[in-house]
Amino acid sequence: MELPTTVLAPSRSIDHMRAVVLKSYGGPEVLTIREVPDPTPGPTEVVVDIAATALNRADLLQRRGLYPGPSMDHEIPGMEYAGSVREVGKRVHQLAVGDRVMGIVGGGAYAEAIAVDERQVMAVPDAVGLPAAAAIPEAFLTAFDALVVQGGLTSGRWAFIHAGASGVGTAGIQIAKAIGARVIVTASETKLEACSALGADLVIDYRNDDVVARTKQATGPVGVHTVLDVVGADTLAANLKIAAIGARIIQVGTMGGGSGDINLGALMMKRVALIGTVLRSRPAEEKATLTQRVATELLPMFDSGLLKPVIDTTFAVEDIAAAHEHMEANANVGKVLITIGPGA
Amino acid sequence: MELPTTVLAPSRSIDHMRAVVLKSYGGPEVLTIREVPDPTPGPTEVVVDIAATALNRADLLQRRGLYPGPSMDHEIPGMEYAGSVREVGKRVHQLAVGDRVMGIVGGGAYAEAIAVDERQVMAVPDAVGLPAAAAIPEAFLTAFDALVVQGGLTSGRWAFIHAGASGVGTAGIQIAKAIGARVIVTASETKLEACSALGADLVIDYRNDDVVARTKQATGPVGVHTVLDVVGADTLAANLKIAAIGARIIQVGTMGGGSGDINLGALMMKRVALIGTVLRSRPAEEKATLTQRVATELLPMFDSGLLKPVIDTTFAVEDIAAAHEHMEANANVGKVLITIGPGA
Repeated sequence: MELPTTVLAPSRSIDHMRAVVLKSYGGPEVLTIREVPDPTPGPTEVVVDIAATALNRADLLQRRGLYPGPSMDHEIPGMEYAGSVREVGKRVHQLAVGDRVMGIVGGGAYAEAIAVDERQVMAVPDAVGLPAAAAIPEAFLTAFDALVVQGGLTSGRWAFIHAGASGVGTAGIQIAKAIGARVIVTASETKLEACSALGADLVIDYRNDDVVARTKQATGPVGVHTVLDVVGADTLAANLKIAAIGARIIQVGTMGGGSGDINLGALMMKRVALIGTVLRSRPAEEKATLTQRVATELLPMFDSGLLKPVIDTTFAVEDIAAAHEHMEANANVGKVLITIGPGA
Repeated sequence: MELPTTVLAPSRSIDHMRAVVLKSYGGPEVLTIREVPDPTPGPTEVVVDIAATALNRADLLQRRGLYPGPSMDHEIPGMEYAGSVREVGKRVHQLAVGDRVMGIVGGGAYAEAIAVDERQVMAVPDAVGLPAAAAIPEAFLTAFDALVVQGGLTSGRWAFIHAGASGVGTAGIQIAKAIGARVIVTASETKLEACSALGADLVIDYRNDDVVARTKQATGPVGVHTVLDVVGADTLAANLKIAAIGARIIQVGTMGGGSGDINLGALMMKRVALIGTVLRSRPAEEKATLTQRVATELLPMFDSGLLKPVIDTTFAVEDIAAAHEHMEANANVGKVLITIGPGA
């Protein structure tokens, strides 16, 4: 059946915005700024004018074609944003034009605007400015989900965080201390002091210290209850050695290898749960549930001063290639921010 | 300081009972029947006249000195029992002399009597006789804990059970079907029919069939939600391939190797939890909690006919060495029972 041509060529003009797109897969040079169609909100969506986005390690993989990003007409990377609501859909109840918001998305945040479901949007805490709020969503949702929701961390228990100076690590240290837990982190030598300053009870130079021995010295025979691991195969054996009876190891990354040997006997005897997790591919309702829980349990602690976004460097969106190079050098402590629109 | 000798030599005479003790570690010949002191109940304990015990794979390891059993004066193996209450402690509220009871213990059930805390004791369902009830505790507690409590199995979902003809396997098949789930099991060729008769939706000959392909054919792209694994290293890769998004793999044994390669990338992308577990070393309060939950949720299904103990062979306690040899030959379907005292 032929459709009338008017359906294919709508009469109203389409507005455009600037966004960073991947013109192909490869090095930082494939990141290109282009004009793309402006988003319009669905019934339960809001369109956000993005003040800033922030980098994630998955962005680097996606740029190289190694991480399955969500399929879209224009492949725009970017998994988090902070900005102001520009437009609301017909059935949006909780947000209004001008609200300062932030959140995680499957992609598309390297852009001047984005349409997002209102249930996946969080209000920016009063104590946090724009663009700084863009350093919050991925790091704090990932760390809270890994340590508390899936990792069962509570007051009094020991958490262990590999790569304590990373975005997720710096969020994790603060969350562990804010809820009354104790926290041990690893980092490279030059980043240890930054981790201590954020509140880590023990910082371990993973290249030059004996990670297992120093951890057991701190915790005594009880061991650590929750491990947040972005490293993978290289740290699996040590994780089982430092684990308490009933501990949970939450695997949120595999920077140090995706495949390695596991001692299932130790896993059984200590009754350890090794839990793999990613935020990006979860169904919308699960993301919304986590977002609402973080809004209730975590965000108030930004206003009370217990938590703060940790920003390593801020780049303008025109320098996105340089920003990727900076993150690939692994020299950052906390998040790499990309400013796009006006702050507030 | 010297104690008065009367404290060391009490005036009342001590009664004795028969028990199977390990005179040393080794083959079935180290199992020896001896007279040992009769148990007396602590304030919250009951003494049970044991009608029967049943074998567990951990008994074979303990006999060889490879499994850390609980330390005791006389090392008496035996992790489960069924019998009648002979005597109750001063603060026992829920049991009376003559009650038919069963339960799991850390050891000591290869004996004519045992003292156990009343919170770890379950009433034998009316529909089940003695000594048959001794085939219930370890198999059904382990399978229920692994599939339902830790594995999150619900109606409509797919369970996968390795070694479906084992004691735990035969219990697991029945539990999965009784709660409305669907279940796939592996077994050796001669045991497949027994697994089908218990209700398994698909039985796979693990030596001659393609386990992953046949499982995916049955479940479609969704995969299995809960895996109950007694095998270990040899099945880890297949478990991750058949796992659904958010699946849980419960490791209750390592008959097929304690150490092996794990694909952490797949664990993350599917958000799988690999959970090690043992019942024996858990604190008393956790065992009591599980026991009470099984009494409420599982035992009524024996009376309604949905569940039944599966007994492979019954030996008299005098033939305990032959019973161990039978289990080591891996020819059993269901439990190997050892009768000790009178039934009821």
